[in-house]
Amino acid sequence: MGLKTVKGGITAPLGYRASGLYCGIKQSKRKDLALIVSEVPCDATGVFTTNKVQASCVVINKEHLKNGRAQAVVVNSGNANCMTGESGFDNSRTMASQTARILGVRRKDVLVASTGVIGKPLPIRKIVAALPELVRQLDRRGSEAAATAILTTDKRLKEIAVEFRVGRRKVRVGAIAKGAGMIHPQMVPATGPKHATMLCFVTTDAAVTLPVLRSALERAVNKTFNRVSIDGDMSTNDMVVVLANGLACNTRIVERTPEARLFQRALEAVFAYLSKQMILDAEGATKFVEVEVRGAASDEDATRVARSVATSNLFKCALFGSDPNWGRIAAAAGYSGAQLDPWKLQIFLGKELVVKNGGRVKKSAAALNRVFARKDIRILLDLGLGSGRAEYRTCDLSTNYVRINSAYRT
Amino acid sequence: MGLKTVKGGITAPLGYRASGLYCGIKQSKRKDLALIVSEVPCDATGVFTTNKVQASCVVINKEHLKNGRAQAVVVNSGNANCMTGESGFDNSRTMASQTARILGVRRKDVLVASTGVIGKPLPIRKIVAALPELVRQLDRRGSEAAATAILTTDKRLKEIAVEFRVGRRKVRVGAIAKGAGMIHPQMVPATGPKHATMLCFVTTDAAVTLPVLRSALERAVNKTFNRVSIDGDMSTNDMVVVLANGLACNTRIVERTPEARLFQRALEAVFAYLSKQMILDAEGATKFVEVEVRGAASDEDATRVARSVATSNLFKCALFGSDPNWGRIAAAAGYSGAQLDPWKLQIFLGKELVVKNGGRVKKSAAALNRVFARKDIRILLDLGLGSGRAEYRTCDLSTNYVRINSAYRT
Repeated sequence: MGLKTVKGGITAPLGYRASGLYCGIKQSKRKDLALIVSEVPCDATGVFTTNKVQASCVVINKEHLKNGRAQAVVVNSGNANCMTGESGFDNSRTMASQTARILGVRRKDVLVASTGVIGKPLPIRKIVAALPELVRQLDRRGSEAAATAILTTDKRLKEIAVEFRVGRRKVRVGAIAKGAGMIHPQMVPATGPKHATMLCFVTTDAAVTLPVLRSALERAVNKTFNRVSIDGDMSTNDMVVVLANGLACNTRIVERTPEARLFQRALEAVFAYLSKQMILDAEGATKFVEVEVRGAASDEDATRVARSVATSNLFKCALFGSDPNWGRIAAAAGYSGAQLDPWKLQIFLGKELVVKNGGRVKKSAAALNRVFARKDIRILLDLGLGSGRAEYRTCDLSTNYVRINSAYRT
Repeated sequence: MGLKTVKGGITAPLGYRASGLYCGIKQSKRKDLALIVSEVPCDATGVFTTNKVQASCVVINKEHLKNGRAQAVVVNSGNANCMTGESGFDNSRTMASQTARILGVRRKDVLVASTGVIGKPLPIRKIVAALPELVRQLDRRGSEAAATAILTTDKRLKEIAVEFRVGRRKVRVGAIAKGAGMIHPQMVPATGPKHATMLCFVTTDAAVTLPVLRSALERAVNKTFNRVSIDGDMSTNDMVVVLANGLACNTRIVERTPEARLFQRALEAVFAYLSKQMILDAEGATKFVEVEVRGAASDEDATRVARSVATSNLFKCALFGSDPNWGRIAAAAGYSGAQLDPWKLQIFLGKELVVKNGGRVKKSAAALNRVFARKDIRILLDLGLGSGRAEYRTCDLSTNYVRINSAYRT
């Protein structure tokens, strides 16, 4: 598809600078404040958590993105600024307006994001005090600093950039992301009806119309981030935001063209990479698992089954223990709410068919143990009912996940 | 309400005998085969898992209970006889028919239950070979032996009996149960449309009409077992079965009478006790937790919120760590799918109001830590929207839960 991975992350596309520093929120004294800025105003859009408890940054970004325009994103980690009352909203607005003032851009052109503990007042003075230095540090090679400053329990930074051609012009898409726990995103456009804390910020120098930007983002997110579950807990702060500044000077990408499809596939590739990185970095996880469902009565049913298996604690404990206990997969499929006939169900662990005709297909224990001993495991369920398909990506549930999350705040 | 707890468990009511022994299924060599028999045929009914993958015992009992009659229940532990193909059904039928033959009762009057690993062929020969001895050991004080023989990962046996008066006659209800993992029951009558492995067998000497028996069972289960979640995983084998032999010789209990309500409350009390015992014995659990929801737009919405909080891995890790992280409670309420306005939401940890007006109510960390340090914790969410109410009972998610379930089979 003509996609090439390039260096530079979120600052790989033309006209973007980024920075990240420690402003005093995290007890660990790691970086906790990030800024991404385009030289010129961008076409912009986003998708947001469908949790009914939403952080003030989510609510404010939906307002700010109504006009399809933005130029900067300011992000703090270590505090979610969620369930913090009216003052929480005031604090998010202050983050945006103070950043706008220093950058000399419009308040509504600044987006805000927060991630961390819910319910604690945001230390807004520390943030405001650090903004001038944050702006001073803006850099054409600032992606890594920003990518580091948005992390919470993540162990590794997550960034990528890809390049492809639109006509004779080279176009780039760059992104950074965070997310290792409270990951079960179901994000929808601000205008839509539908939930994670994962954050992803995307920049592109492509010239692209707002309708293409919006539909490409929504479709790419539905195939990637919205098909990831680490722990089944949907956050109040999830968002993916895209800025497109047009500085690549390509012929503007319009709907229903090969270029629009290419742009969407570029986003999908970027999101697929970042969502895999999130799972590889998931709290306590030791395994990367893909659950594929085929033959469902509908795509919706396939999604129900894939989600049910990918969020089953018993299945995920079996993964951690490298125990090929497929009975737990069958049980989770059975309670998903999807149409299912156990006599037609087939289950594959890796390439090994283990369930057929309502019962097991006898395989050597050694062969199945080998599949579950891997770090990268693929499960396929064929329901034998129709042509519905879906895929979910997840990880195992480990004693370390419990340890990390029973001691997270105290 | 005139209910008195009495000794004797499932054999406390008149006319019942029970037994339990080791027949060779469990590697641990613990008891794995149980039998409960009434002297005379009983009015009988049951509720069963709504998992679409159902063990053969579930399917067969629904058939056998169509005529509202049964006289015996034969139960094995250590093997679920689920997803074991046609031969699995043959094996369950053989369990019933061989038991019937030895007891001299009709095949359809014998119910069957299995619990344990999914997908492994049932060692039916061992079971059949042990049946004569199982029948020989039937005893008026056999409740404990039967209660022990139905256990899997449970550490303690679960039995109870209560007594109350119907007119001048004393009537008794006795029950035994098992369940410590794969517990998220949603059971409905065989005739109904709706899911655990938990097993519960109930005997009564009350004379009661089948409609009263059926509605009392369904209502009592909906208020108790169907409001319990240990790990969110619904089993393929859950069932509650009631036998009523009428030997108390009370005036038969008919619908819409104070006696019918009393009978239902007796079942509720028995099930409430047994469901609490299941949670106290839950795999790895260190805490018993009640999640109460009030003020929801509807009872259904209240149930959604209570279930969402009670099954949130992050909330349950916080419970294990004794960390009063109410943000995770708010987030889980927000993604439940219920109507919710964060500005109207109130959250109480024990008696401490911690969330109001969209933000925290400042309380001393010591006070909140005290609440979460308890072994018995009550959480209340008031949504402030209507009069919908619901309650769920659950436990914490511990490192031991993960250890137990990553090593269960291997």
